[in-house]
Amino acid sequence: MNFKAVLRSLGILLICEAIAMIPSLIVSIIYAGDDTPAFIYTIFFTALVGVILSSSRPKTTSIYARDGFAIVAIGWMLISFFGALPFTISGAIPNFIDSFFESSSGFSTTGASILTQVENLPKGILFWRSFTHWIGGMGIIVLTLAILPSVGTGSLHIMKAESPGPTPGKLVPRVGQTAKILYGIYIGFTLAEIILLCISGMPLFDSMCTTFGTVGTGGFGIKNASIGAYNNIFSEMIIIVFMIICGGNFALYYQLLKGNFKDVFKDEELRLYLGIITASIILITINIYGTNFSSIWESLRHSSFSVASIITTTGFATADFDKWPMFSKMLLILLMFVGGCAGSTGGAIKNIRILLLVKTMKRELMQIIHPRAFYTVKIANRTVEEKTLMEVLGFFFMYILIFVFAVLIVSLDGEDVATTISAVAATLGNIGPGISVVGPMGNYSEFSYLSKITMSLCMIIGRLEIYPILLLMVPSFWKKVNI
Amino acid sequence: MNFKAVLRSLGILLICEAIAMIPSLIVSIIYAGDDTPAFIYTIFFTALVGVILSSSRPKTTSIYARDGFAIVAIGWMLISFFGALPFTISGAIPNFIDSFFESSSGFSTTGASILTQVENLPKGILFWRSFTHWIGGMGIIVLTLAILPSVGTGSLHIMKAESPGPTPGKLVPRVGQTAKILYGIYIGFTLAEIILLCISGMPLFDSMCTTFGTVGTGGFGIKNASIGAYNNIFSEMIIIVFMIICGGNFALYYQLLKGNFKDVFKDEELRLYLGIITASIILITINIYGTNFSSIWESLRHSSFSVASIITTTGFATADFDKWPMFSKMLLILLMFVGGCAGSTGGAIKNIRILLLVKTMKRELMQIIHPRAFYTVKIANRTVEEKTLMEVLGFFFMYILIFVFAVLIVSLDGEDVATTISAVAATLGNIGPGISVVGPMGNYSEFSYLSKITMSLCMIIGRLEIYPILLLMVPSFWKKVNI
Repeated sequence: MNFKAVLRSLGILLICEAIAMIPSLIVSIIYAGDDTPAFIYTIFFTALVGVILSSSRPKTTSIYARDGFAIVAIGWMLISFFGALPFTISGAIPNFIDSFFESSSGFSTTGASILTQVENLPKGILFWRSFTHWIGGMGIIVLTLAILPSVGTGSLHIMKAESPGPTPGKLVPRVGQTAKILYGIYIGFTLAEIILLCISGMPLFDSMCTTFGTVGTGGFGIKNASIGAYNNIFSEMIIIVFMIICGGNFALYYQLLKGNFKDVFKDEELRLYLGIITASIILITINIYGTNFSSIWESLRHSSFSVASIITTTGFATADFDKWPMFSKMLLILLMFVGGCAGSTGGAIKNIRILLLVKTMKRELMQIIHPRAFYTVKIANRTVEEKTLMEVLGFFFMYILIFVFAVLIVSLDGEDVATTISAVAATLGNIGPGISVVGPMGNYSEFSYLSKITMSLCMIIGRLEIYPILLLMVPSFWKKVNI
Repeated sequence: MNFKAVLRSLGILLICEAIAMIPSLIVSIIYAGDDTPAFIYTIFFTALVGVILSSSRPKTTSIYARDGFAIVAIGWMLISFFGALPFTISGAIPNFIDSFFESSSGFSTTGASILTQVENLPKGILFWRSFTHWIGGMGIIVLTLAILPSVGTGSLHIMKAESPGPTPGKLVPRVGQTAKILYGIYIGFTLAEIILLCISGMPLFDSMCTTFGTVGTGGFGIKNASIGAYNNIFSEMIIIVFMIICGGNFALYYQLLKGNFKDVFKDEELRLYLGIITASIILITINIYGTNFSSIWESLRHSSFSVASIITTTGFATADFDKWPMFSKMLLILLMFVGGCAGSTGGAIKNIRILLLVKTMKRELMQIIHPRAFYTVKIANRTVEEKTLMEVLGFFFMYILIFVFAVLIVSLDGEDVATTISAVAATLGNIGPGISVVGPMGNYSEFSYLSKITMSLCMIIGRLEIYPILLLMVPSFWKKVNI
């Protein structure tokens, strides 16, 4: 472990976070809210710690996979910690554990909230809360890579550790350039959605906050009734489209920009993702038509929004799906485990892994039928390495294992089964709302501190796809070795 | 596919089932119940179909893995079908789908019941219901292998397809001999428990039925309050011990008989199994002490019984754990997925797979820390083949996938989350009781026919460890190939 290089990177990260708070400070000044001092103090303190840490001078700037994982794991916990300060200092969320929950929820693009009322919060705080989604969506470390000249030869390791999906790669040979392209597309989507939402009739401030929640697939609402508060079908359609886009693989959008349409439409993960969305919308529309909505169009409207919101792990709501029939609720809980595509801003297990799991399962069955034949798993006509399959299968087991452990801890609170299970699924998968107590019209305030800390960790673990945080707990991760 | 050999084997199986019904007929005659004609008709009809099928003359008696899977999968559905006839014909369970559910539940050693009252059933029917557990526990096909001279060169394939665990093997070179040893041990446990239960004060008939439910890890009770009805701590202790024994690997008991104690105590799966049992008993005892029971001994008594009953997938009850705190209930639901050991009569995922999954997970983490090193997974100092690990990981995914699909279907009934999830977990894992509506004092009568059929299939799929039934659905499974 190159400790000094890790400290230095963490320092740079905190400086970036301090800079990222400036827009929120400006908002708080514009609206003359009483949250301005909170931002000033936090920015100063965060920058100070950042400068101290970044003054560490490593002997070599080379970093390896392990260092990358350490930077990402510790980095995300640090930014969640410092990101929580404005909430507590401003008094918006007096308790620091609650603030840390809210901040982890923001950066991990979960959108689970302990707040019972959001509409009366200062505007700067509301803006910061939504802006953490935007930062967390594409990844603050990728952002750092895009802005700064390369921090060393190991930046690909950092990017791999932070980016979702089993096989994140570089779009172009240089990592910094790749990060710039990704952020370019991301900013493009952000501007497009803000403009479209304004056109649909949403105020600028609301459009910005909603957009940060959409493109980062976060889901913090600035209204108590989430998107349902606007009751504007055009806004909803815009948000549905952008949620689905941002739950897709950003590398594909780069291919589209380069005019490579054929590969995009043949992409198996994209097909699976869109297929699951379509099938789920149809099934839920049929299920809620007649029981919850008398019009088929209203059923389709709320079914489409909820499915898009849950599978992309955003978590906005237009209807209280906790009141829907059990089948719809179970299907939505299932979608919480599926999540978006690799290379998207969405969370959970992701479609590419589901695809590989199903293909591996088919292969196992074929192997039994023809024991002497040799089968491989292919994606886009290319054989997937056995090592990758093992990783994906292992990831699936770890995901379920962490889910189970978190459920056991949270069950100590004595909430009902639906609440306990869906709360953990919704935090680990970075969705936000679950069902029952944590339903779209509920919140996470009732849980004990132990559960809140557990779920805060689940959110970060889920966002970083398990490995970085889990590695911190392996003793030999910290040992010095000569490679 | 050697269709004729498959038909012939199925015929022999049905003849065996007809013979297996004779003890129940005798019981019904002794107690002069009105269920005697039902057994006479069923035995005649089952034997007749058996004779017709077994008259099929295959060109060669050689069977391959595929044929073995076909015999096991179709065989188990057939015996469940014919085993359901006495229930319907006697009028004990008028509806055939309910009877099929009860019969599948019996053979698969699940113990989930649609009956709301069992105490007023005719004695022959009660005996048959429990006896199906005994047959299903060790496997009727293994029984056939033990009794009959080898049905061909492929009997190992049949045994592999029916026996639990990723690596079932022969204890001795000949399959028939292995089957005889396993059944010998099984009969030994059965006799021992019947005698001990009688000594503890339980009537002979009750002792026999309870023993069939224990050693087969089934769990059908002949009292409405299950084992709790006897309120006899000695009987409970005997049952706890035999449940835990029969949830263990029978191959180890053969080693014990041969005096090979060292290997048994070093067995990693056994250690994990006993470790999980101990830890769960302690956690639940602490959790229910004070809230449900005022005495620590009563807490320990019911916690031990429930943990042993659930992890061994038996399903007997001495207390209504549905009334326990959420943590205890969640832990019990988790144990439903763990199950017994390989080569036991218990169901679910099994400890050896959990062990391999955890070891593979550790390996994946080590691989990230030291990307250039090469790690293998070892059990008892022997390297486990990558192929086996892939199978185990694939099995885990399939288990969860089938669980999820079944939950979606059952959720159409609109029962609460706790009922829906635990009912599927309890049937797929061959446990029996779940929580809420299907709790230890509840039953499965409320579900729709669709759910009952789905759960009947889950029970058989769970008992046969997924592959045999799943293979029936793969088109190329049925194609003729030259091997």
